[in-house]
Amino acid sequence: MKTDRHSIEQAHERIKPYIHRTPVLTSKSVDEATGCRVYLKCENFQKIGAFKARGAMNAALSLDEEQRAKGLATHSSGNHAQALARAAKILGVKSYIVMPRTAPEIKKRGVRGYGGEIFECEPNLQSREETLAEVIRKTGATEIHPFNNYDVMEGQATAAKELFADVRELDAIMVPVGGGGMLSGTALAAKFFSPKTKVIAGEPAGSDDAFRSLKSGKIEPAQSQSIADGLLTSLGDKAFPIIKENVHEIITVSDAEIIAAMRLVWERVKIVIEPSSAVPLAALIKEKDRFKGQCVGIILSGGNVDLEKVLKLMIKED
Amino acid sequence: MKTDRHSIEQAHERIKPYIHRTPVLTSKSVDEATGCRVYLKCENFQKIGAFKARGAMNAALSLDEEQRAKGLATHSSGNHAQALARAAKILGVKSYIVMPRTAPEIKKRGVRGYGGEIFECEPNLQSREETLAEVIRKTGATEIHPFNNYDVMEGQATAAKELFADVRELDAIMVPVGGGGMLSGTALAAKFFSPKTKVIAGEPAGSDDAFRSLKSGKIEPAQSQSIADGLLTSLGDKAFPIIKENVHEIITVSDAEIIAAMRLVWERVKIVIEPSSAVPLAALIKEKDRFKGQCVGIILSGGNVDLEKVLKLMIKED
Repeated sequence: MKTDRHSIEQAHERIKPYIHRTPVLTSKSVDEATGCRVYLKCENFQKIGAFKARGAMNAALSLDEEQRAKGLATHSSGNHAQALARAAKILGVKSYIVMPRTAPEIKKRGVRGYGGEIFECEPNLQSREETLAEVIRKTGATEIHPFNNYDVMEGQATAAKELFADVRELDAIMVPVGGGGMLSGTALAAKFFSPKTKVIAGEPAGSDDAFRSLKSGKIEPAQSQSIADGLLTSLGDKAFPIIKENVHEIITVSDAEIIAAMRLVWERVKIVIEPSSAVPLAALIKEKDRFKGQCVGIILSGGNVDLEKVLKLMIKED
Repeated sequence: MKTDRHSIEQAHERIKPYIHRTPVLTSKSVDEATGCRVYLKCENFQKIGAFKARGAMNAALSLDEEQRAKGLATHSSGNHAQALARAAKILGVKSYIVMPRTAPEIKKRGVRGYGGEIFECEPNLQSREETLAEVIRKTGATEIHPFNNYDVMEGQATAAKELFADVRELDAIMVPVGGGGMLSGTALAAKFFSPKTKVIAGEPAGSDDAFRSLKSGKIEPAQSQSIADGLLTSLGDKAFPIIKENVHEIITVSDAEIIAAMRLVWERVKIVIEPSSAVPLAALIKEKDRFKGQCVGIILSGGNVDLEKVLKLMIKED
């Protein structure tokens, strides 16, 4: 893999016209709850409501004209689907999105709003992959994988790069881990732009495959038991070596801890984040004794929620 | 009344060290829903989660040492209560807050968090006033009324002043109206800092006393039928002449329209606002044909919500 400081800088220049430089918020309430000085990088305010706009845009812009012309395709349960549909719309080409029929309606609406064509599949990996293969066979479109793609990973790296530029001297940067696109991108950004910063992931305990993978040294299969529905995939084989080498620690948290952290952000920071976004903050709160007084950056990965569903979760936990 | 350009500037200088200069957000989704270019002044990110931090701080800082020393007192169903308790804490004096026993728990917790002493009363004006009079008799504290106080009004004016500084050439500025502190303050700020901007209020149809007061030319009593629980009071007699002279229009909206606007902001802007905050946006959406293509500033007044209550509202409206 050829990622270095320069290639991340190039990715950033490439996507800058199409993404927000998202704000970094601080909150007395969050600092009190963690005992740290916390900097929240608000990718919930990103285009399409999540950091995935970065990686998809970088991957789409990295294709040559001929590839682009046949369209972009992917399977995704959520934010990457919208991100790729949006990238295709910006480039004036078609997008073909394979989504599990159980995906949140708000995310399907988002894809259609960007002109994406949705192909529904069963909510399992085999059905996703078979449906996508069929779509690609028919259209000649190029697959842009949600995370197992170096251009996507370099695109995701730009969120951490911006945070390191805005806040010097972070002791740690914390992100959620699902397939590992954000985590590997963040690890690379730390390596090249803030090597003293520890890279830490939060992961749902009910889907702790990344945690187990770091222990065993090989990619472990995912379970699918968490409200953090963006994080239920196993690690990509392109991300795993980077994570193994550059990630300091993975902290697992229960769904109750995730919901409590999400509620803290909604009620006190006054911003809407999705459950997956709350995972690293939940991890920091859980392990706060070990981080006392540190400067910690957290990437809030997205804000696309079914309001009823999330509100019900928060209230159920009370 | 002595308010002029200079006195609002002085109020702003006085409170600046103690308040946030809140951000102004724009949103493609909100622009599409309104047909306008909308600038959202995010007072939900203000200290205590609402613009009331401004007026209370200005009023508290305007007292002399001897007055302050005996403490600050008020009756308030919500945000002003927290704002005054916070102001007292900053000044190192006591605060005595009369609150209806039905006030949201999150707001009571907020007051106690700032060291305020709560006196519960029945949820009607007579009980509020009697309880407050008793508290003041016992303590010698100074009453800081939530809105019928020139220092409070000048403090509230600073939100619009900041918005006019950040966004030139607003065709209209829209705010909610309850007791009229925010509306009169905004009207004064427009008069002195952006005289071409029309000042428009949104008001719940179920509590449209300000709308009727502008029609009749005298202060009409309030009803109390709306989910916008910050807006159920009748106009103060200090605010009313200013509103009569300087406010262009009051637009009333139904609770369903308020909830739809609130939901748009939560889902698409990704920020948490309280129902009262959504009233001016609901008004703009309702009357969008008349505002087509205009630049409109909206003050999002606060973000303090009982999540349970909001969930119930959203589910009921669906």
